[in-house]
Amino acid sequence: MTRLDTSFAALSDPTRRGVLEQLGRSDASITDLAQKFDMTLTGMKKHVGVLEQAGLVSTRKIGRVRTCQLGPRRLEEEQAWLERYRQRWEERFDELEKVVEELSRKEKGDESRNRK
Amino acid sequence: MTRLDTSFAALSDPTRRGVLEQLGRSDASITDLAQKFDMTLTGMKKHVGVLEQAGLVSTRKIGRVRTCQLGPRRLEEEQAWLERYRQRWEERFDELEKVVEELSRKEKGDESRNRK
Repeated sequence: MTRLDTSFAALSDPTRRGVLEQLGRSDASITDLAQKFDMTLTGMKKHVGVLEQAGLVSTRKIGRVRTCQLGPRRLEEEQAWLERYRQRWEERFDELEKVVEELSRKEKGDESRNRK
Repeated sequence: MTRLDTSFAALSDPTRRGVLEQLGRSDASITDLAQKFDMTLTGMKKHVGVLEQAGLVSTRKIGRVRTCQLGPRRLEEEQAWLERYRQRWEERFDELEKVVEELSRKEKGDESRNRK
């Protein structure tokens, strides 16, 4: 699994995106997060584990409480991939538009020649 | 499943990202794609199906050949989510830095007071 595989997979779940949004506001314990997202502790631990694996969340245990905060990765690579994609997408559709225009110009040309 | 779930899941596979990059250069049949990515036709059909579900690829069948091209979605929402995330990430780390600075200032203050 490459880095992009892991991070896009981590982002493909609404609870995990919610956890990241929450941790963007303030750090939280797994118990807090489980309550906030109406989920069992085990379920939340699993989600946090996926986010931790992807470098999106860091956790530290103080006494009996495991606190979560945003991890080291800020998803720059992922953003760059999407940006490149959007650019290519627009170029492709511009090309297609030109082809369609060219075809319709030719058609009109043929029509006017046929009329003569 | 929301739109972001489907698209991020679609992007979490290197072959699928490769197919999108390829279709950004030119349209291709499923057979072309299977060859290029050294994959069975069935395997490639599955990947293309996931991309089609996510609106990232459109296919049309002309005679016996199914041609793939980039789909209607240009991943703007996904880009916006990542952009917001990165901003929050930077704000959080700025806040943390300030807390650390504040603590180290206080510590120095205490030290100089203790020395007097």
